[in-house]
Amino acid sequence: MSTYSAPLRDMLFTMKEVGGLEAVCALPGFEECSADLVESILEEAGKFAAGVLDPINRAGDTQGARWKDGVVNAADGFKEAYQSFCDTGWNGMPASVEFGGQGLPTLVSTAVLEMWKSSNHAFSLCQMLTLGAVEAIAHHGSEALKQRFLPNMVSGRWTGTMNITEPQAGSDLSVIRSRAVPQGDHYRVSGNKIFITWGEHDLAENIIHLVLARLPDAPAGVKGLSLFLCPKFLVNEDGSLGERNDLLCTSLEHKLGIHGSPTASMSFGEQGGAIGYLVGEPNQGLACMFTMMNHARLNVGLEGLGVSERAYQHARAYALERVQGRTATGSKTIIGHPDVRRMLMDGKARIEAMRALAYFCAAQMDRAHAATHPADRAPSQALVELLTPIVKGWLTDNALFIASDGVQVHGGMGFVEETGAAQYLRDARITTIYEGTTAIQANDLIGRKIAREGGKTVKTLIARMDADARRLLDSREAAVAQTGAALHTGVAALDAAVDWLLAHSAEAGAQCAAGSVPFLRLAGTVVGGWLSARLADAAAAQLAAGEGDAAFLRAKVATARHYAAHVLVSAPMLRDVVVHGGDTTLALADEQF
Amino acid sequence: MSTYSAPLRDMLFTMKEVGGLEAVCALPGFEECSADLVESILEEAGKFAAGVLDPINRAGDTQGARWKDGVVNAADGFKEAYQSFCDTGWNGMPASVEFGGQGLPTLVSTAVLEMWKSSNHAFSLCQMLTLGAVEAIAHHGSEALKQRFLPNMVSGRWTGTMNITEPQAGSDLSVIRSRAVPQGDHYRVSGNKIFITWGEHDLAENIIHLVLARLPDAPAGVKGLSLFLCPKFLVNEDGSLGERNDLLCTSLEHKLGIHGSPTASMSFGEQGGAIGYLVGEPNQGLACMFTMMNHARLNVGLEGLGVSERAYQHARAYALERVQGRTATGSKTIIGHPDVRRMLMDGKARIEAMRALAYFCAAQMDRAHAATHPADRAPSQALVELLTPIVKGWLTDNALFIASDGVQVHGGMGFVEETGAAQYLRDARITTIYEGTTAIQANDLIGRKIAREGGKTVKTLIARMDADARRLLDSREAAVAQTGAALHTGVAALDAAVDWLLAHSAEAGAQCAAGSVPFLRLAGTVVGGWLSARLADAAAAQLAAGEGDAAFLRAKVATARHYAAHVLVSAPMLRDVVVHGGDTTLALADEQF
Repeated sequence: MSTYSAPLRDMLFTMKEVGGLEAVCALPGFEECSADLVESILEEAGKFAAGVLDPINRAGDTQGARWKDGVVNAADGFKEAYQSFCDTGWNGMPASVEFGGQGLPTLVSTAVLEMWKSSNHAFSLCQMLTLGAVEAIAHHGSEALKQRFLPNMVSGRWTGTMNITEPQAGSDLSVIRSRAVPQGDHYRVSGNKIFITWGEHDLAENIIHLVLARLPDAPAGVKGLSLFLCPKFLVNEDGSLGERNDLLCTSLEHKLGIHGSPTASMSFGEQGGAIGYLVGEPNQGLACMFTMMNHARLNVGLEGLGVSERAYQHARAYALERVQGRTATGSKTIIGHPDVRRMLMDGKARIEAMRALAYFCAAQMDRAHAATHPADRAPSQALVELLTPIVKGWLTDNALFIASDGVQVHGGMGFVEETGAAQYLRDARITTIYEGTTAIQANDLIGRKIAREGGKTVKTLIARMDADARRLLDSREAAVAQTGAALHTGVAALDAAVDWLLAHSAEAGAQCAAGSVPFLRLAGTVVGGWLSARLADAAAAQLAAGEGDAAFLRAKVATARHYAAHVLVSAPMLRDVVVHGGDTTLALADEQF
Repeated sequence: MSTYSAPLRDMLFTMKEVGGLEAVCALPGFEECSADLVESILEEAGKFAAGVLDPINRAGDTQGARWKDGVVNAADGFKEAYQSFCDTGWNGMPASVEFGGQGLPTLVSTAVLEMWKSSNHAFSLCQMLTLGAVEAIAHHGSEALKQRFLPNMVSGRWTGTMNITEPQAGSDLSVIRSRAVPQGDHYRVSGNKIFITWGEHDLAENIIHLVLARLPDAPAGVKGLSLFLCPKFLVNEDGSLGERNDLLCTSLEHKLGIHGSPTASMSFGEQGGAIGYLVGEPNQGLACMFTMMNHARLNVGLEGLGVSERAYQHARAYALERVQGRTATGSKTIIGHPDVRRMLMDGKARIEAMRALAYFCAAQMDRAHAATHPADRAPSQALVELLTPIVKGWLTDNALFIASDGVQVHGGMGFVEETGAAQYLRDARITTIYEGTTAIQANDLIGRKIAREGGKTVKTLIARMDADARRLLDSREAAVAQTGAALHTGVAALDAAVDWLLAHSAEAGAQCAAGSVPFLRLAGTVVGGWLSARLADAAAAQLAAGEGDAAFLRAKVATARHYAAHVLVSAPMLRDVVVHGGDTTLALADEQF
C-alpha cells in the first residue's frame, strides 16, 4: 500500500501560476496571507492528511459506518481523527472569520481541501456538509440562529447536514413532500429523507440538520419549499444541549463506495414533529439550498481531483516497485512498459489540468468576493458561475477514468481489494452523481450559464484563451508552441460548439440537451488545456531564466504537451458530437430501446 | 431489479447478416444446423439464462464463494444450477462431437455463451475454464489422457482450470518457478499458483488442473515451461475416483467483483508432489497454454459483450420505469431526459457493434475450421488471429464504459448496491485485465498480428471495409449514406495508423507500443463501425423490400447512425494519438512522475 504524499510543489506552482496567489494575497482582507504562510499551511495540512487521515481510509472502507437501533458508529479511528481535526482548527479553517474561521483565501482552502479528499474522501464529507450548512445559515439565517449554531458548527463540535432527497424526489425537487407546521416561534417538521451524508454518527455531540419541507399554505413545486434547521439535540438558551429532537436515522445505505461516510435514511416527526427553525424566508428554501449546493458542487469537483491524485499516486507507487517482464524503455519496473507509462502520463496530465481549473476557479471566487473595485468583482463572479458546473462535471468525469486506469496499472492485483486500488474507483463512482449528476451540471452550463446571457461570459473566456493560444504558438520552446497549436484548435472547436448551441437553444432545446454532456466535456477539456498550457508557459519562462528545479519544470512542459496530444486532441470530435449527434440520440421511440 | 431477457431478435439478425448463418450452416459438418434449429436453441438457452442463471446472480455477488479449511462452497443456488446446466447438456454444447459436444458452429455457441455471460458472469467462468482445458487436452494430450478425462469434463461432471500465474509471474510467464519431477509414467508437481478461477469448489466431483511448471532440465524462460494435468482426485484405471492428490486451495481472493467465482490460491506438492501427467511435449507448455488462451481471450471479449448487454438492460428497465422531472422529449419516465437517452443509445450502439464483431469472428472460426477448400480456410484463420486481440481488448474496454453509464442512468440509486447496477460495473472491471491485459492484447495486435506479416491481413480487411463504405455512401437511405461517409473517414484513419505502425515498428518499437492501446481502440471502433453499418445496410434493404418488422429495422439503421456520430467519429483523433502521441508518453524519466 502506498502512502499519500501531498503534491506540495505541484499545488504551489499551480496556485502561483494560474491562481495568481500573490495577487490574491494582496486583495483586501487577505493582507495577512503570504506565499510563505501558505506554504507552511499546506505543509501542515499535508502532514495531517498523510499522518492521520490516509491511515484510516482503508478501515473506513472495509469496516464502514455501522447502524444499530438508530445509533451510528463511525469506522475505527474516525472519531479520534475527527477530534484531532477539530482541535487543530482544520474543520473551521475555510469558514469566514466572523464565525471562527481563519479568513484565508478560497484559493488556499481549496488546496487544503484537496488533501482531505485525497487522503480520506469519506471523512472529508463530514466537514463539507458542515461548512455547507454553515454557509446557508450565515447567508440566510436570523441573527439568533447564527449566534446559537454557527460557532459550534465552525469549530466542528457540532456537524451539519443537507436533507433534500426523498424516495420520490431525487433530481426533481418539485415533488418533495416533507411538511412543516408552525408552532409558536418554531415549526414541527415531518417527512422521510434519504441519502443524507453523515446524517447520523458518533463523531460529534450534536448534528444540525437543514431540511427542505413545505409549509401548509405553500405553492406546489419548487417555489413552495422552505428550509428548516432541525438539531438532533435541542439547544437551550444557554447553549447547553437539551432534549433529543423528534428525528431518527432509520437505516444506512449499503453503497458501492465511500463506506466510511454514513449515508442515512432519516425520519422526521414520528412523534408529532421535529422542532425546526425557519432559515430564510418562507418558500425561499431553494435559494437557501442553492447556497449550499454551489459550495458543494465545487467541493465534489475537488473530490474528483482528490481521488484522482490519490489513485494516481497509488498506481505510480506500484509501477515504480513491481518487477514484471523486460520493459521497452529500460526501466527495471513496470513503469517502463509503454502502456503503463501512457496510463500514468494520462493521469498526471489530466490531474494537472484539473487542479489548475479548480484553483483558477477558487481564485476567481476570491476576486469576486474581495476585489477592491466592485467592477472587478462581476466578471470574476460570472466566471465562477460559468466554471462551477464544469469543475463539478469534468473533474468527476475524469476521476472515473483515472481511478479505473489506476486499477488497470495494477493488473490482476488491482482487482484484489487488499491492494487498495479498487477502493478509489468505487469511491470515485459517486462523484458524477451526487450534488447534481453530470447531466444536471451540463444543462445548467448550456442553459443558465451560457444561453441565458447569450454566451457573454463564455465568449469573453474564449477570446482570452485564444489570445493565449496565439501567443504560445510563437513560443521559442517547441513543446510549448505545439501545445499552443493544439490549444488554438481546441478553442476554435469550443467556439464553434458554443455558436451552435446559441443558435439552436431556443427552437431545438432537446437537441442541445442531448449534446450537453459532450459539450461539458469539451469545455472542460479546452479550459483545462488552456490552464495546462499556461503552467507549461510559466515553466518554460522559469527554465529560460535559469530559475527553479529544471527537472520539475521540464516535466510541466512535457506534461502539458502530453495533455495536448492525448486529451485536447479530442476537442474537434466533441464539437462534432455536440453539433451532429443530437438527432441520432433522439431518433428512437421509447419502445425501440 | 430487472430480469434478463436474451436479445434473440438482435442476436439472430446479427448471426444472419454479419455472421452469414446460412453459409456457415452449409459448411461441411454443420449440415444438420439450420436457421430454425438455431432459433430454437437460442430460445431454450435464453430461457435457461433468464430462469436459472440470472436469478442467482445476486446471491453470487452478495454471498460469494466461501473458503474454509481448504474447502470451497459456492454461493447458494450455484450447485443446483450447475447440475441442471450439465444435465440439460449446455456445458458440453460448444465442444466437438468426438468428446460428447453438439458439434454446432462456433457462431451458434458464441450466441449461447453470450447469454451465460449476461445472466451470470461468475457462473459462466466455470464452463469457460473447463472447455478451455478440454481444448488444450484434445489438441495436445495423449490418447490415454483424452479417453480418461475428456468425456467427464465435456459433460461437466468434472471441471477444469488453468494454473498459470504465480505471485512473481503475472503477465511475464518466463519467471514461473513451479517444478515437475518425473516419476515413472507421471510427474510430481510442486509450486504455488494464484488467481486460479474456479480452482476449488463444490459444484463437481473432481477438478482437473492444468499446471504450467518446469522440468528439472528445462531451459530458462518461457521455452522451459511444460504443461501438466493434475486432478484433484486421482482417477483409477476403471475411471472411478481414487485418492486425493497432493494439491490444496489455500485461500480465495477478496475481489472487487465476480464474487460468485472462487479465485483460488493453489498449493501443489506440500506432501511431496502432486501427481501430474504431461500434456504435449516437454518444454512446449506455452504452445499448449496458448490453445487455451486464445479460446479464453475470445470468451473474455464475449464477457465484455455479455455484461454490457445486461448492464444496458438493467439501465433501460430503470429508465422506462422511473418517473423524475418533466422530460424534454415528452416521455413520462426518465428515458425522456436527453442525456439518459444518450447514455442508452451509446450503450445500444456499442453493444450492437460489439456483438457484430464477436459473431463475425466466430463465423470466421467456423470457416477457418470447416471450409471445403483449404484455400478458403487460411484467410479466415488469419482474420481470426487478427481479430482475437481486438475482440478481447475492445469489447472489454467498452464494457467498463457501458457498465459505468448503467450506474449513471440510475442516479443516486446506482450507487446503492441493492439496485444491482453497481455489480455489473464491478464484475466488468476484471475483463480488461485477465487473460492478458488490454496492453498485452494491443502488443499482440501491432506486433504478431500486423507488423510480423507486413500488415497483409489488416490491409485486406481495410480494402474490404473501404469498398463497403464507398458502396454505402451511395445508399438511397440518407442515414445509411451518412453512416457510410463516417465509415469511409474511419477506415482512412485506421489505414493511416497502420501505415505509420508498419513504417515505425522496426526502429521505434517503444513509440509504437506507446500507441498500441489507442490503436487497438481505433481498430475496434472502425471494424465495429463497419459491421454496424452492414447491419444497417441489411435492415435498409429489408425495409425497401417491405420485409420484416419495420420498427426493429428502422432502429437498426438509426442505431448504426448513432454509432457513426458518437463512436466512429473518434477515429481520426485516435489516429492522431497513435501517430503523434508516442513521444509525449515517453517524455519523462521515471523520477519525474
